[in-house]
Amino acid sequence: MTVASTEVVNVIPEGEQRVASFGDRLAERVAARESQLVLGLDPDPSRLWPEALHSADAPSGAGSASPAGTASPAVLAARAVARHCALVIEATAEHCVAVKPQVACFERLGAPGWAALAETVALARERGLLVIADAKRGDVDVTAAAYAQAFLGETSTPFGAVAGLGVDVMTVNPLLGGDSLMPFVTTARAHGRGLFVLVRTSNPGAADLQERRLADGGSVSERLADLVHQLGLSDVGAVVGATAPDRLSSLRERMPHAVFLLPGVGAQGGRVEDLAPAFAPGRAGGLVSASRGIVAAHEHVGGAPAAAAAGEAARLRALAWRLAA
Amino acid sequence: MTVASTEVVNVIPEGEQRVASFGDRLAERVAARESQLVLGLDPDPSRLWPEALHSADAPSGAGSASPAGTASPAVLAARAVARHCALVIEATAEHCVAVKPQVACFERLGAPGWAALAETVALARERGLLVIADAKRGDVDVTAAAYAQAFLGETSTPFGAVAGLGVDVMTVNPLLGGDSLMPFVTTARAHGRGLFVLVRTSNPGAADLQERRLADGGSVSERLADLVHQLGLSDVGAVVGATAPDRLSSLRERMPHAVFLLPGVGAQGGRVEDLAPAFAPGRAGGLVSASRGIVAAHEHVGGAPAAAAAGEAARLRALAWRLAA
Repeated sequence: MTVASTEVVNVIPEGEQRVASFGDRLAERVAARESQLVLGLDPDPSRLWPEALHSADAPSGAGSASPAGTASPAVLAARAVARHCALVIEATAEHCVAVKPQVACFERLGAPGWAALAETVALARERGLLVIADAKRGDVDVTAAAYAQAFLGETSTPFGAVAGLGVDVMTVNPLLGGDSLMPFVTTARAHGRGLFVLVRTSNPGAADLQERRLADGGSVSERLADLVHQLGLSDVGAVVGATAPDRLSSLRERMPHAVFLLPGVGAQGGRVEDLAPAFAPGRAGGLVSASRGIVAAHEHVGGAPAAAAAGEAARLRALAWRLAA
Repeated sequence: MTVASTEVVNVIPEGEQRVASFGDRLAERVAARESQLVLGLDPDPSRLWPEALHSADAPSGAGSASPAGTASPAVLAARAVARHCALVIEATAEHCVAVKPQVACFERLGAPGWAALAETVALARERGLLVIADAKRGDVDVTAAAYAQAFLGETSTPFGAVAGLGVDVMTVNPLLGGDSLMPFVTTARAHGRGLFVLVRTSNPGAADLQERRLADGGSVSERLADLVHQLGLSDVGAVVGATAPDRLSSLRERMPHAVFLLPGVGAQGGRVEDLAPAFAPGRAGGLVSASRGIVAAHEHVGGAPAAAAAGEAARLRALAWRLAA
């Protein structure tokens, strides 16, 4: 756990000042915390931990300071979501190196949801965790620059600079090609942040397009892997679903140095035991992400949600750590 | 202008109740307004109309009711952005059938930005305009469902339903395949809303992946066009950049009934005159979107921003209307 490096992250580069690269920071954090486990936060307001629901009427700072009696469903739900995420983080942080909030789950609660997301990001960073925004953004260059400002950088305005969400790394969608990724790369690099580019996602439909063969050889995913390798220093990684372990070796060959974010462990069917090829460059070569498998562990093993989540996080962490040296 | 059909849009289906399809509503709106022009709203806080900046210190409802003296840069900038969008809408609404807010430009201002987006959506609908959220979202099924709730539907919570942004149609990214699009289709159809699937985007980098040839014939874009055609009733359209008019005819052959959203006119180099193939199914077969070309027209022709924007919108509207019958 390195509070010092959390401080480095917040420094915006000015002149000669050197910003630690995301890859260096990640490797250091994985070693310090002895974990490659990412806690996925996909809060569904209908499936929050009971304690989060009970405390949602108490003001928590998410979205509004109005008393519960006059707060809208969006404000109350956003408070409960922020509280739920805080409880899950407190229960499992010691076993994790990062959290991965799913932006959609906050965005569906509107402006109060966005405030809950910001609160969750801040808490995770206080606990020494890296934050991966699972945003899957991708757009033409001027718009990609705006998304990079929203998540990794800041926005100049006549009223002063508006800080973005301040996450360490975000997921991006490469369908629009290389020029659509460059603003993300530029902003990430300037701020010591990183990117995970979608290469082979964890859902069954990934086969529809990503696994199609190209006329000049290889698959769409392999072409995306080449793009990541071309872009990449250690700050551009790849999303490779844990649900398709048979693709891991060939993708690792094409991206020998990239960090792999491996979602889909647990509820989606991926198994940590199958992910060894991801760790070829070393322990920080892969981040294993589980969401419902941790947060809803009590539904399978019983007991209090926090204890069950901690137990499952500890189990997954140990499994992954054992795979690499 | 049809206030009645605006009311229909807000009806959530229950039991036997019929929801007008997005395609029907769009065709009706194009005919009533005699326009296929979409006003793109990509507000850059550093390039707002002067009047928007001057009035930003007056409370406008975006984000906060706190007095200007204590408001954060984010709140002030979001107010100015909302005011700018309102001014542009008031200046050009009579020439347009829809507005297309670029979500990134609001999201970079955090929770106050999201509130400004909601305010802009509401104003456009009051003015009889359809709203196209340019969000380019795409994710695995459970997350896609959350994004669909955020933009097109609503979210059930223990505190009551939280309404989404309530746009008429949103752009989605199909890289994750068919199963990632289905939650959007289901939610859109249930609410009489629509989707525009990215098929061939307007940026130069579109060639990197979208124009690659597949081993079994055709290009990636053509494969995406087939996917749109398979999904589609009139509520699933396609984004086809106005910057690649040579692709229009072949894509139209593969998607004979789909509505084309045609971005990239003006600043990105697309010309309305080249878009005739899009309108093969009729005038509502294509929506021509211009953003900076309208909003920044005064930088080229001089005069007040509102007058210049209205003039350019009128010109583009007439050009497009003339292309089809």
